[in-house]
Amino acid sequence: MPEVFADNPEFSLEVEDGIATLHFRKAFLNVALKLHTRGEFLEQLDRIERDPKVLGLVQLNDEQFSGADEMKALMDQLVGQDPGRLSVLHRYKRSTLELMSRNRDFSKPVVSGVIGPMTLDEFGVALMCDRILLSDDCLVRNLSLDAGLPAGAILTFFLPRVVGPKRALTLLTRPDALGAADALELGLADRVVPAAELEDECRAEVLRLAKLPDPVVAATRKLIFSQFEKFEDHAERSINMTVQILQSRGR
Amino acid sequence: MPEVFADNPEFSLEVEDGIATLHFRKAFLNVALKLHTRGEFLEQLDRIERDPKVLGLVQLNDEQFSGADEMKALMDQLVGQDPGRLSVLHRYKRSTLELMSRNRDFSKPVVSGVIGPMTLDEFGVALMCDRILLSDDCLVRNLSLDAGLPAGAILTFFLPRVVGPKRALTLLTRPDALGAADALELGLADRVVPAAELEDECRAEVLRLAKLPDPVVAATRKLIFSQFEKFEDHAERSINMTVQILQSRGR
Amino acid sequence: MPEVFADNPEFSLEVEDGIATLHFRKAFLNVALKLHTRGEFLEQLDRIERDPKVLGLVQLNDEQFSGADEMKALMDQLVGQDPGRLSVLHRYKRSTLELMSRNRDFSKPVVSGVIGPMTLDEFGVALMCDRILLSDDCLVRNLSLDAGLPAGAILTFFLPRVVGPKRALTLLTRPDALGAADALELGLADRVVPAAELEDECRAEVLRLAKLPDPVVAATRKLIFSQFEKFEDHAERSINMTVQILQSRGR
Repeated sequence: MPEVFADNPEFSLEVEDGIATLHFRKAFLNVALKLHTRGEFLEQLDRIERDPKVLGLVQLNDEQFSGADEMKALMDQLVGQDPGRLSVLHRYKRSTLELMSRNRDFSKPVVSGVIGPMTLDEFGVALMCDRILLSDDCLVRNLSLDAGLPAGAILTFFLPRVVGPKRALTLLTRPDALGAADALELGLADRVVPAAELEDECRAEVLRLAKLPDPVVAATRKLIFSQFEKFEDHAERSINMTVQILQSRGR
Repeated sequence: MPEVFADNPEFSLEVEDGIATLHFRKAFLNVALKLHTRGEFLEQLDRIERDPKVLGLVQLNDEQFSGADEMKALMDQLVGQDPGRLSVLHRYKRSTLELMSRNRDFSKPVVSGVIGPMTLDEFGVALMCDRILLSDDCLVRNLSLDAGLPAGAILTFFLPRVVGPKRALTLLTRPDALGAADALELGLADRVVPAAELEDECRAEVLRLAKLPDPVVAATRKLIFSQFEKFEDHAERSINMTVQILQSRGR
Repeated sequence: MPEVFADNPEFSLEVEDGIATLHFRKAFLNVALKLHTRGEFLEQLDRIERDPKVLGLVQLNDEQFSGADEMKALMDQLVGQDPGRLSVLHRYKRSTLELMSRNRDFSKPVVSGVIGPMTLDEFGVALMCDRILLSDDCLVRNLSLDAGLPAGAILTFFLPRVVGPKRALTLLTRPDALGAADALELGLADRVVPAAELEDECRAEVLRLAKLPDPVVAATRKLIFSQFEKFEDHAERSINMTVQILQSRGR
């Protein structure tokens, strides 16, 4: 029987056999934007981290999950140009940055499993996990493009560092969705597995990582990702450019 | 009937059906070094950028184009050691940097088509375009090597970031020319097309990019390439090293 | 008949037909840690560099070489927690950094040939050579992982820049040894050759590089690798994290 740590409309967090499983039920932006949800999210991650029986964390999205509509709605709302609304964007980006740093600095193994349709921005949130596994039917859509905005700071920062600036520019400026095989070939993921086996494979991966002497996995993750210090500068630039584009539309 | 914006020995610029086409007739260094040509180049790019009927820009080199002889002549001239001549090198590098930043910040889609023999340094100029298409008979030669000089700052800066420092070092220190297939595999280009179809394919690519909501393409390009802030420092180091090598030969 | 420049338990250095060959007989950490050995190493490299008949340098490890036991012994010793011993780690890392900078700035071509079992940390030392050739039976083991420590600063700094942070994190947090074919595919090496031909192939590579106009190879290597200026900051962070992990075990 799993022990339930959180169970709300945005995400659930359960622990079974020493592995914590985080299910995103809605787009990550819901966690980033809703003050209460965000607070509960950080609090439960802290509990999981301190709990000695928890070996590591699996991050999954629900099969029905797609951040597309929600992100579109947010963007549409923002295009409304109310200065109060623009500050939502700032809060979203800052919040995402903070939640990602929490992920980067988590002291136990973190494995991300990506299912079904998903936005490229949401996918970017997984880029600092120890392993990324994709379900074979996974499809990553570049939604920012539809909204006429450059991709989020995470993507414009990390993607050039993972696949090179040339490939990143092409990926972020074409409407084509990215299939599991493409993502694997680009080095954005570790493995592709059948959708039905994704959760089990993620759990097995956490167990493998948890067998390595502690805290080597978390320390290596932190060392690798914390050297890209200019991310904060870049995120600022990204926010400013997005706000500028949105404001120019209001004219 | 194309509308002619510029038509001089170094380059031509025409607009037809909403697409501007820039033909380099001589090596890029002619544009970078000749004060008058450079002025006209920047002025015409500004006009193209402001012109609401221009959707985007195709950059091509003439089939007869090869910067090899001109670059060799410039280097030979520089080896002459006249301090006044060395300043030509400084002007060349600064000018190239300025022209490339103009390219990076251009507010409409830019697609580069690379034809026939070309120097690796000239190829580097294309690295900040939205798409790079290669004619199947394209051959990129590493001319700096013949001249006994490290490749230009653009290459020693961007190539390690596109293909990694290990591969970049090998590419920049071997005399072998780079064929279209090699360049594609290395991630230096988006597609290889038959030489006869290169211009049409570039135009089609501009149209595809122009259909995306404005200004997402230009904003993404700017975000991706402007985060490598140390390029100016690197260019300075590259200039100094080149000058030092040239001066040591005069002794 | 080769001219012998150095012949000690840690390394030998000989010159034959204009090519210097450096054999590491023990793990690189012996050169880095033993004050006398380190002094002789730097002194002989200086001599080789000044000697006009030396065209370039081949770096090899002995076939029996494996730094694994020595590195384990060092780590075990360090885990003893004596503050005097912890300073050994600081000295090791600083020393490695200095020896690698010496390699990066060497004014003649440097080709590295990697044989048999080796630790990933030792392999990292080769990453700033002009060419890396692997014997087909070469096997690179991630020993730091066994010791429960993040890989050395060289690896956590350069590997993300060579293969991207995503792939680097996976490579540095899995116990699997890396075979020659894997290393080649990842772009960590230039070629794989039969073990029996490794030395000859390295010599041939030095001759090819030495035919290029001097000093283009050394200048390009220096330009490419000296732009990653934050390595010193990163090395500091890496040392601190390692010391912290070791100290926490003593509690």
